[in-house]
Amino acid sequence: MRKFGIIGVGHVGVTIAYTLVTKGIADELVLIDSNEKKAVAEQLDLEDCQARLDTTTHIKVQDYQKLADADILFITSGNIGSLQHNDGNRWAEFEYTRDIVKDIAPKIAQSGFHGVLIDTMNPCDAIAHYLQRTAGVETSKCMATGTFLDTARMQRVVAEQFGVNYKNVSGYVMGEHGESQFVAWSTVRVNNHPLVDFAKANGKKLDYDALEEEIRKGGWAVFSGKGYTSFGIATCAIKLAQAVLSDAQLECPVSSYNSKYDTYLGQPAVVGKNGIEYVNEVKLTDAEEAKLANSANTIKEKFATM
Amino acid sequence: MRKFGIIGVGHVGVTIAYTLVTKGIADELVLIDSNEKKAVAEQLDLEDCQARLDTTTHIKVQDYQKLADADILFITSGNIGSLQHNDGNRWAEFEYTRDIVKDIAPKIAQSGFHGVLIDTMNPCDAIAHYLQRTAGVETSKCMATGTFLDTARMQRVVAEQFGVNYKNVSGYVMGEHGESQFVAWSTVRVNNHPLVDFAKANGKKLDYDALEEEIRKGGWAVFSGKGYTSFGIATCAIKLAQAVLSDAQLECPVSSYNSKYDTYLGQPAVVGKNGIEYVNEVKLTDAEEAKLANSANTIKEKFATM
Amino acid sequence: MRKFGIIGVGHVGVTIAYTLVTKGIADELVLIDSNEKKAVAEQLDLEDCQARLDTTTHIKVQDYQKLADADILFITSGNIGSLQHNDGNRWAEFEYTRDIVKDIAPKIAQSGFHGVLIDTMNPCDAIAHYLQRTAGVETSKCMATGTFLDTARMQRVVAEQFGVNYKNVSGYVMGEHGESQFVAWSTVRVNNHPLVDFAKANGKKLDYDALEEEIRKGGWAVFSGKGYTSFGIATCAIKLAQAVLSDAQLECPVSSYNSKYDTYLGQPAVVGKNGIEYVNEVKLTDAEEAKLANSANTIKEKFATM
Amino acid sequence: MRKFGIIGVGHVGVTIAYTLVTKGIADELVLIDSNEKKAVAEQLDLEDCQARLDTTTHIKVQDYQKLADADILFITSGNIGSLQHNDGNRWAEFEYTRDIVKDIAPKIAQSGFHGVLIDTMNPCDAIAHYLQRTAGVETSKCMATGTFLDTARMQRVVAEQFGVNYKNVSGYVMGEHGESQFVAWSTVRVNNHPLVDFAKANGKKLDYDALEEEIRKGGWAVFSGKGYTSFGIATCAIKLAQAVLSDAQLECPVSSYNSKYDTYLGQPAVVGKNGIEYVNEVKLTDAEEAKLANSANTIKEKFATM
Repeated sequence: MRKFGIIGVGHVGVTIAYTLVTKGIADELVLIDSNEKKAVAEQLDLEDCQARLDTTTHIKVQDYQKLADADILFITSGNIGSLQHNDGNRWAEFEYTRDIVKDIAPKIAQSGFHGVLIDTMNPCDAIAHYLQRTAGVETSKCMATGTFLDTARMQRVVAEQFGVNYKNVSGYVMGEHGESQFVAWSTVRVNNHPLVDFAKANGKKLDYDALEEEIRKGGWAVFSGKGYTSFGIATCAIKLAQAVLSDAQLECPVSSYNSKYDTYLGQPAVVGKNGIEYVNEVKLTDAEEAKLANSANTIKEKFATM
Repeated sequence: MRKFGIIGVGHVGVTIAYTLVTKGIADELVLIDSNEKKAVAEQLDLEDCQARLDTTTHIKVQDYQKLADADILFITSGNIGSLQHNDGNRWAEFEYTRDIVKDIAPKIAQSGFHGVLIDTMNPCDAIAHYLQRTAGVETSKCMATGTFLDTARMQRVVAEQFGVNYKNVSGYVMGEHGESQFVAWSTVRVNNHPLVDFAKANGKKLDYDALEEEIRKGGWAVFSGKGYTSFGIATCAIKLAQAVLSDAQLECPVSSYNSKYDTYLGQPAVVGKNGIEYVNEVKLTDAEEAKLANSANTIKEKFATM
Repeated sequence: MRKFGIIGVGHVGVTIAYTLVTKGIADELVLIDSNEKKAVAEQLDLEDCQARLDTTTHIKVQDYQKLADADILFITSGNIGSLQHNDGNRWAEFEYTRDIVKDIAPKIAQSGFHGVLIDTMNPCDAIAHYLQRTAGVETSKCMATGTFLDTARMQRVVAEQFGVNYKNVSGYVMGEHGESQFVAWSTVRVNNHPLVDFAKANGKKLDYDALEEEIRKGGWAVFSGKGYTSFGIATCAIKLAQAVLSDAQLECPVSSYNSKYDTYLGQPAVVGKNGIEYVNEVKLTDAEEAKLANSANTIKEKFATM
Repeated sequence: MRKFGIIGVGHVGVTIAYTLVTKGIADELVLIDSNEKKAVAEQLDLEDCQARLDTTTHIKVQDYQKLADADILFITSGNIGSLQHNDGNRWAEFEYTRDIVKDIAPKIAQSGFHGVLIDTMNPCDAIAHYLQRTAGVETSKCMATGTFLDTARMQRVVAEQFGVNYKNVSGYVMGEHGESQFVAWSTVRVNNHPLVDFAKANGKKLDYDALEEEIRKGGWAVFSGKGYTSFGIATCAIKLAQAVLSDAQLECPVSSYNSKYDTYLGQPAVVGKNGIEYVNEVKLTDAEEAKLANSANTIKEKFATM
């Protein structure tokens, strides 16, 4: 039986819930929110789906004890819509989410939950680190979507330059899921060619700085039009969860603990039944290494204030 | 190739879009909204999913001409969140949505669209009738989700009385997707037994009025907790669309044209490649027939003011 | 994590395996067969799928110990193709399958398996009873597909008379998954009308005996053209398994223990996490009751020879 | 509406059909076989599934005229099981399949079919070329699964060396779907590292010749245990079909026309709504180029005898 918990039924949390229910991924689902009326309403709306679906998911609400035997717990709290977010800076949510995470982390610890934590709350790298420490779990058992989403945006932005499928673009956005992130261009490949070669062969001059800006501001572009982001981030979170449940040993960029920098940050890693199975060390250029160090420090500074 | 259009990318419209994309149902999708920035943001957020999915959907925005060869067009406009909705009355949205539909119906007619229209805008029975007339399509080519959703709620409410699967409850909520709707209790069956017999055999005394009130107020219960409804309604709309595309000849309650009352209303009908293939006339009690007549008149009165 | 075992990787077993893998239903799968080379080949062929799928399933072979923590165990042994089967009589397989089941039942008992057994081996009612006794499990924990498949055929045959969707036909084929089965015509409904009424309203004269013969010989029609049956039966078995895993409380006809007749037979029952949750007693006509008694006795006589 | 045709309902054809039906990919499906009884039996068995599925697929048999508006036509004839195949050589099927293809190609041409042809018949590169010429379609409109399957086997064999997910291995098997194929090791990457580097970093000495032999003999390993191959090949064929239907612009190795060698052969290409959109020229070592030339010549020689 596959059992999931979701703490925070805002746009991201309910999109994850809806997907788990409508795709038949979850056999059991626990929804928890500081706003009980909202959690109950989401439960009802999800239950209104089920007479029209071929699968069944049992949904419970507001009970931390029910997390004890959950396989995966998504942390999706935060209220992006209520914040002044007009600079596109994910740190802006920090003070607000810090209070939330300080409230929920001990409750998770006490619930008996011993599965894998997947965080989408921003600033997600620092929050994941805080959650891992406070909930008292091994670093391998806690991850955040991090630059998995930014990498999806990189795949989109690069693919659109060439009219290829997004999945035919590989490579990584690394570091902070935030302003200090960077595209590790040396890792990017299109149709299995190094990006630089592919662009050249196709007579395409790329403005890497402009592309990177478009990628970094991808979340902001969505936010400014719809007031929040939900679909891309939910899809990333679910992909990670499925990798854990099926012990997929899936390699992908994900916010995870980096021992060199003693912080969480977006980096290639392998996800399986133990959560983060191992970090996949990739060769970066010196300039990229410097950007990674800089991004790691940015995250650590923020984490230090928690 | 399966091609869908969605006019109105509010909560319902984007939930439909997200489902069509993440379940790989749509090969092509056209999103149209009066707020272009929002349509573009939703497109981006949906495209951010695609590097993480196994399927591909091409998404276009804001172009009515692209509807010419769409198979299905969902009409999901309306802004439930912005309205005073505190009486649970779907007519409250009417004046607002009437203006919207007066704007979009001629554009649909001019687009060359000749597929099947599925309306979720409220008051959906009257709106569907108006759309059908104004867009100049046969009655069979235009339907609304109507009491398909209320019936899902009935299945939930009844199933929970007995701990059975929602899908093991059959029968119909009929009439208006609104206050004048009614549960045709004489049609309701649980585990293939007439409800009355099943309740008796299980030593259960049912308060039919209370159950009916819970069903009718089901949307309100969701709305009051989350500010809108989205998941149940989207799932119903998609089920209808899939029945059209695969020519499923699926029998279900749906808002469709009733020639006796010369109005749209929720009634059992069969859905296939032509839209509404035929109405499935079911035997009702005299009291239920009276309720149906009353509900039909309520809808017609409103429609007359459009 | 969802874990399944399959004993017998003939056509039915591998179709179940293929479905569990390609639909992403199984996280782990154990295949066991008396022909080890075949089990390994099926494992390889299933693994050759996985680079092309979005999900991951770990497949193990030939190890009964790995069944200890499986949720569901399908018993799909038997070699229909090698038998003289020219009378369409499922008892013909009996001696052969009896030896198989006598070999595997103790191994299941010793494996520590404590999930739910789903049998598709023929004669499936007697085999299920034998398995339940020998493997030492509660009757609720062992079921066979039984007339769930014959009912699917009834839905097809009746639906085609009226051009409706198969799912719009409800009702039951009951008794033996074999010659003595019968259609409980009094339970059959089309588009939510009693079949008799629906046929009358549509000006259709039905030859019930001919329809019943077509239903009963449905498996034979498939067998005589392709040498075995696989798709329908696999789909039924998987539907039961999913009902167990998600605790769906799904009502359907299934071969389960009937205390009145002290035998397994096809009857409406409710399937959930405990396997058979309860039998759903339906009202039959006297003639149907007599047919049920007769079919029960047929199954019991055969079982007595095991 | 998505419409598919399948000519040849042997193990591969029916596995494709079953997948299209049970995953809800096909709205309409046409099955054609030289053995009409078998085609009808497969139709029945697939229809026996549908009362248990959430989707509907209309299935027709034996009518070439119904292919006129199909999007995709799979050619899956051949009778691998009936052949002496004990040398693992796919050419062994050649004479038999040549006769089949000579029978069906003109019928396809006359049917009015104008979609995309996907061939799985062996020797599939030569057969695809023959089909393309005889059915009179552009080279872009006809492809064969070719080394897409061998590449899946390479992904499996390499992934198992390191315990990574099969999908984390990229690169190509190229040339003939047969004995003269070769692994383009210079293109193979694991977890986004060149294979050579990854093996070194993991302290793993690889025997490339042994791995290549295991890959080349992958089909044989399956065949020798189960008498045919079906699951891997069907999954590859469906992936190509979905790429066409959704215009995915998916890059993958597939048997397609190579103008340099004037033959079909397995090579990286991009698949979209026009079939093969373009060949993705990848840099090979000189030794690999020589192997490709050799493999191309092997295919051409055989084709010349058709």
